[in-house]
Amino acid sequence: MSEKMEQYRIHQEPYYRSTGDEVALYEAAYSVRMPMMLKGPTGCGKTRFVEYMAWKLGRPLITVACNEDMTASDLVGRFLLDAQGTRWQDGPLTLAARHGAICYLDEVVEARQDTTVVIHPLTDNRRMLPLEKKGELVHAHPDFQLVISYNPGYQSLMKDLKQSTKQRFGALDFNYPEHVTETEIVAHETGVNGDVAGKLVSIAERARNLKGHGLDEGISTRMLVYAGSLIAKGVEPLAACRVALVRPITDDPDMRDALDAAVTTYF
Amino acid sequence: MSEKMEQYRIHQEPYYRSTGDEVALYEAAYSVRMPMMLKGPTGCGKTRFVEYMAWKLGRPLITVACNEDMTASDLVGRFLLDAQGTRWQDGPLTLAARHGAICYLDEVVEARQDTTVVIHPLTDNRRMLPLEKKGELVHAHPDFQLVISYNPGYQSLMKDLKQSTKQRFGALDFNYPEHVTETEIVAHETGVNGDVAGKLVSIAERARNLKGHGLDEGISTRMLVYAGSLIAKGVEPLAACRVALVRPITDDPDMRDALDAAVTTYF
Amino acid sequence: MSEKMEQYRIHQEPYYRSTGDEVALYEAAYSVRMPMMLKGPTGCGKTRFVEYMAWKLGRPLITVACNEDMTASDLVGRFLLDAQGTRWQDGPLTLAARHGAICYLDEVVEARQDTTVVIHPLTDNRRMLPLEKKGELVHAHPDFQLVISYNPGYQSLMKDLKQSTKQRFGALDFNYPEHVTETEIVAHETGVNGDVAGKLVSIAERARNLKGHGLDEGISTRMLVYAGSLIAKGVEPLAACRVALVRPITDDPDMRDALDAAVTTYF
Amino acid sequence: MSEKMEQYRIHQEPYYRSTGDEVALYEAAYSVRMPMMLKGPTGCGKTRFVEYMAWKLGRPLITVACNEDMTASDLVGRFLLDAQGTRWQDGPLTLAARHGAICYLDEVVEARQDTTVVIHPLTDNRRMLPLEKKGELVHAHPDFQLVISYNPGYQSLMKDLKQSTKQRFGALDFNYPEHVTETEIVAHETGVNGDVAGKLVSIAERARNLKGHGLDEGISTRMLVYAGSLIAKGVEPLAACRVALVRPITDDPDMRDALDAAVTTYF
Amino acid sequence: MSEKMEQYRIHQEPYYRSTGDEVALYEAAYSVRMPMMLKGPTGCGKTRFVEYMAWKLGRPLITVACNEDMTASDLVGRFLLDAQGTRWQDGPLTLAARHGAICYLDEVVEARQDTTVVIHPLTDNRRMLPLEKKGELVHAHPDFQLVISYNPGYQSLMKDLKQSTKQRFGALDFNYPEHVTETEIVAHETGVNGDVAGKLVSIAERARNLKGHGLDEGISTRMLVYAGSLIAKGVEPLAACRVALVRPITDDPDMRDALDAAVTTYF
Amino acid sequence: MSEKMEQYRIHQEPYYRSTGDEVALYEAAYSVRMPMMLKGPTGCGKTRFVEYMAWKLGRPLITVACNEDMTASDLVGRFLLDAQGTRWQDGPLTLAARHGAICYLDEVVEARQDTTVVIHPLTDNRRMLPLEKKGELVHAHPDFQLVISYNPGYQSLMKDLKQSTKQRFGALDFNYPEHVTETEIVAHETGVNGDVAGKLVSIAERARNLKGHGLDEGISTRMLVYAGSLIAKGVEPLAACRVALVRPITDDPDMRDALDAAVTTYF
Repeated sequence: MSEKMEQYRIHQEPYYRSTGDEVALYEAAYSVRMPMMLKGPTGCGKTRFVEYMAWKLGRPLITVACNEDMTASDLVGRFLLDAQGTRWQDGPLTLAARHGAICYLDEVVEARQDTTVVIHPLTDNRRMLPLEKKGELVHAHPDFQLVISYNPGYQSLMKDLKQSTKQRFGALDFNYPEHVTETEIVAHETGVNGDVAGKLVSIAERARNLKGHGLDEGISTRMLVYAGSLIAKGVEPLAACRVALVRPITDDPDMRDALDAAVTTYF
Repeated sequence: MSEKMEQYRIHQEPYYRSTGDEVALYEAAYSVRMPMMLKGPTGCGKTRFVEYMAWKLGRPLITVACNEDMTASDLVGRFLLDAQGTRWQDGPLTLAARHGAICYLDEVVEARQDTTVVIHPLTDNRRMLPLEKKGELVHAHPDFQLVISYNPGYQSLMKDLKQSTKQRFGALDFNYPEHVTETEIVAHETGVNGDVAGKLVSIAERARNLKGHGLDEGISTRMLVYAGSLIAKGVEPLAACRVALVRPITDDPDMRDALDAAVTTYF
Repeated sequence: MSEKMEQYRIHQEPYYRSTGDEVALYEAAYSVRMPMMLKGPTGCGKTRFVEYMAWKLGRPLITVACNEDMTASDLVGRFLLDAQGTRWQDGPLTLAARHGAICYLDEVVEARQDTTVVIHPLTDNRRMLPLEKKGELVHAHPDFQLVISYNPGYQSLMKDLKQSTKQRFGALDFNYPEHVTETEIVAHETGVNGDVAGKLVSIAERARNLKGHGLDEGISTRMLVYAGSLIAKGVEPLAACRVALVRPITDDPDMRDALDAAVTTYF
Repeated sequence: MSEKMEQYRIHQEPYYRSTGDEVALYEAAYSVRMPMMLKGPTGCGKTRFVEYMAWKLGRPLITVACNEDMTASDLVGRFLLDAQGTRWQDGPLTLAARHGAICYLDEVVEARQDTTVVIHPLTDNRRMLPLEKKGELVHAHPDFQLVISYNPGYQSLMKDLKQSTKQRFGALDFNYPEHVTETEIVAHETGVNGDVAGKLVSIAERARNLKGHGLDEGISTRMLVYAGSLIAKGVEPLAACRVALVRPITDDPDMRDALDAAVTTYF
Repeated sequence: MSEKMEQYRIHQEPYYRSTGDEVALYEAAYSVRMPMMLKGPTGCGKTRFVEYMAWKLGRPLITVACNEDMTASDLVGRFLLDAQGTRWQDGPLTLAARHGAICYLDEVVEARQDTTVVIHPLTDNRRMLPLEKKGELVHAHPDFQLVISYNPGYQSLMKDLKQSTKQRFGALDFNYPEHVTETEIVAHETGVNGDVAGKLVSIAERARNLKGHGLDEGISTRMLVYAGSLIAKGVEPLAACRVALVRPITDDPDMRDALDAAVTTYF
Repeated sequence: MSEKMEQYRIHQEPYYRSTGDEVALYEAAYSVRMPMMLKGPTGCGKTRFVEYMAWKLGRPLITVACNEDMTASDLVGRFLLDAQGTRWQDGPLTLAARHGAICYLDEVVEARQDTTVVIHPLTDNRRMLPLEKKGELVHAHPDFQLVISYNPGYQSLMKDLKQSTKQRFGALDFNYPEHVTETEIVAHETGVNGDVAGKLVSIAERARNLKGHGLDEGISTRMLVYAGSLIAKGVEPLAACRVALVRPITDDPDMRDALDAAVTTYF
């Protein structure tokens, strides 16, 4: 594999706790190179799962955080000017297709349509990527796979994937882990003991029940890891929860009171 | 034919199961070089049909996935800068017109108006393409033909082809194949036996009846091929259908239940 | 005349059947170099008429298909970069003005305002074109004339020519030809006999009566030529009409039935 | 004066029939270099008046047809790239300010705000033009004057000059000339006799009474000159009026009948 | 001080009639380099005041007429390309900050947000300007001061300064001068005698009472200077007032009558 | 540390009066490199706090004033053209990530989505920044930290951070300091005595009570420092308060009276 790809290799096993048959299903999907769509709320571990699978399958991983100002050229590549004139530079998608990496388009629904349409010829049996600006037809490397993430809670009339895009992917559902699993994750990632970790998870579970009742999203596993890290550094649990769990997600006084009350119940 | 066109040639007969007189009609249309419009839902085989006809007629095929950020320059070409100054590079449409390929504009309704107007002079008896930026008038190669695809289900007030564009094309209707034909296709493409393939087709037929009743589109032939591929790799049929047929097209719990029920009826 | 203009010359008399005094009026308008506006529905022969007049008057013809993404620079010209630095390149309008061609802006109402305002100084007694970017004032060649086409049926509040633009043109009305004339045209252009051609014209006349009652536009002369061509190639008249006349203009099942019925009345 | 300005000089006296004290007022305004605004309907002679005054005052005239896509750079100038790197090129406004021409911004209300704000420092006692991109402060030549045209009938909430712009100009009203004067103009410009010219003016006067009652604008002097030119070339007066006066300004059948009736009253 | 700044120096005392303590307050504000905001209607002397203060304080003055198409780069600077590659060119704001000029942003509310946010770090105690494109942090010259003008009458929901911008400026109110002062100004600037000047001021005062009752803005001091200049050149006072005071600000027949009546009361 | 970073170092202790446990909490957050969000009204000291912490932690500070026209490239970097061709230049975010500075995105909510999404991979455990245009993956320096500011009062439906962004930050609340503390700050920063400083703070407190009752924001600490500076320069307190506290924030006559009354109560 080209030297350029080395920086995209994952050398250490990422910490990932499986919560069902998602690892086996992903392996089967990869074996037929089916493009995959990971569905679930923010901060529940989709990115970590892709990193884990890339490590397990021994493939480099190229991640792109999609956004509405990203153009097809940002994915596919462009001509740059140097002393000898213009020189083509592969974008992350082309790089992955050419050298056999897994390409992960995070929050793909944020991207403009041209970004999503550009992936179509890579997702059917043709597995090719026309570089129209360069006049080249890239046939994907046999190891290449495309993965996208998708948060159903964000879906709106204005921003959704087209049916003709959705139909090109197999889909796996993700959610926050079970209590015991999430406690184990928080303890492992922060160094706090299981008791503290469990309390943090309980606070999160209460907040997740408020989703749709004044909160747009609940408290994610990642936020628990932040709170645990502060506690492990000696910050008072109450202050740590205020800074890492409550203040970031709401400015509404009543909601803050409700969340602060949940915190004081446990600490 | 120029060497550049070699990459657009189709060397092996693509697998295509004819469903009517569409092959003969297309051959007649091509013999008078009538521009053609292929109408039908996503994933029903329009792209495969064009590939098959290009192979049958022995013409190279240049495919462009249209999108709303595509400019006329992306089709026609542009000046690039190199060490000797600017150099013109033909876009895919010009390439096809100049060298006698079939140019296939996939989902042309997604493109902006300038993209669709640019094809007008190629679609009447003039058969020419003015490269205004270059000051050149390209007379189309005698073998050149233009083909576009169009999904009537997507048609909206905001996005539709102008009448003055539609009138420039002959049109062929496409739909999902009959039960027996589709079963044959799924079995052929995935390696599962006819029994499994038939069950998958039956599930799809149920889902297609839900189109307009909570589903924007039914389950396409391509999705059945994905499900069959997973089953052929040893994945449980229930899990394979969940990943490849149900999860990708809906997040609505009731609709998921309905589709899952259809799956368990057969497996 | 410059060599560059040779490609815009029309060497063979285009087939055109006059339907009134439009040829004489156009000749008088050209003799005083009055800018002309051709009004009429899509596919009724406006473009063919301009080609015929350009041939008759012995002038080169530069045609521009207008669209809403076209800029004034696309008409007037721009600086290009080459090894010696920037080099000015005349756009089609400047080329025509400088070398004495007829410049035909097809569907000018589609263009943005800057495109239409840019033609103002060429349409009054000044007959000049300021190239502001180049700092040059082009005085139009004595043979230069400007012609635009305009489809009154498309006119909307959002897209119409400004009064100060309309007032700069003489206007000629166009419509589909009379039954006998149109039959003669279809027979001449396709090679089918007068009987078949007449039946095709009768079908078109029925469809034109449906305009505004479920059809946006009727069946144009150009579409009849397509249908006739297929029949001349041996395609069944019913199939030829389906592909070339009915399927392209409507997806509404009732309207398709009505049009198919019109077809079976004659074939 | 620089050689470059020669192309903007008016060598022959333009034909202009004064209709009041506008020539004397303009001369006084020019003597104090007051910026001027010419108000009036389309085609009534504003442009001709500026040409006449520029000839009378012996100043070069640089005319810019404003439009909504014109940028401040189109007026002021820009850097161009050539073999020695970037080279500044004055825009028409800078050219006029630097070399002492009259700069005429036609239909200035069509321009974007940045175009109108850019003229502010040239219209107060500073009489200077900052070229921000070049870092130069151009002090206007003593002979420089700025003139703009403005059609009050077009004024809308969306498009009007800002008060802070209007206050920087003296204003002169224009309208279509009196019957005798306009007859004289039409006869002079076309070669038809006074009888025919007078009939054309009478037709125009009828049409102008319909303004606001189904017509957006009346028939302008310029249109009468077009009609007269066709008649002088031997075209039947009825056909000439149809082509040059009626068809260009309306597609409404009733309005066409009313105007055609006005034509047949006189011819 | 750098040679480049010489062109921005004001060598002659601008004529300015103080109307209160604004000169002393400005001097105190400048002594602590407080950014200043000058509020008041169009044409009442804000620009003249800044010129006067720049002369009195002996600082160069760089004026920028803001508009909605101006980008942050127009203020801050940009890279230009020349034979040796790209070269940075300071924009007017950077020039002023670097060399210790007063930078006057006229009608700042017209600018886009990026233009107004870019001035924030120059308006608090940091007094610095990050040139992000160049990777340089400009620390403002000790003599640098920022001044903006603001017309409260223009303020709308769509276009207003952000509170976080307003809070960064001290503010001075301006208005048209008292009768005697304004008379003196008009006489001084035009050469008409005090009697004529006083009549002009009286007309303006009547018009200012109509502001909000059919007039968007009253007649400004600058307009009176225009009218006086025409009278001094021998133009009849009635004609001069028509051209310079009435016609520029309204097309409403009733309002024109009211204003013309005010003129004939005095002349 | 690289020489380039020297200009971003803070050499003198910034004057900061702590108002709670925010310094200790920030130190803990920095020790685990948790990205931080500072919430509070304009001018209450958020920027000063970051400067103080950067000094205390001995890290360079790179501040970016966000705005809606800022692109991801403004943060991340871009290719520039010079004599040897294109050269990559790090943007402020990349510079900070590469060399271990604290990067402070002021008023991040003003930025477009692409700017906020671009920071995602820097705010989770990956701590990396993909430079897609350059094809480089920057792993953040161990000392790097990201800080953003956020004014909850500005929050609207149109402009708010996405939940998936908010969840990536710990949050600290800021507000105007207590009476005694704020008095001390004003006295320290301006040189006025405690009596005058206290009166200024009392005026501000009255104005802050009007927030939401006719004032969008109250009078900030920064404005008090401006007023105190003028008084220290000998300006009458009434005039100083008029210029620095009242005129900048409102043009409403009633509100001005209310605020002027508050001023005369104390001076």
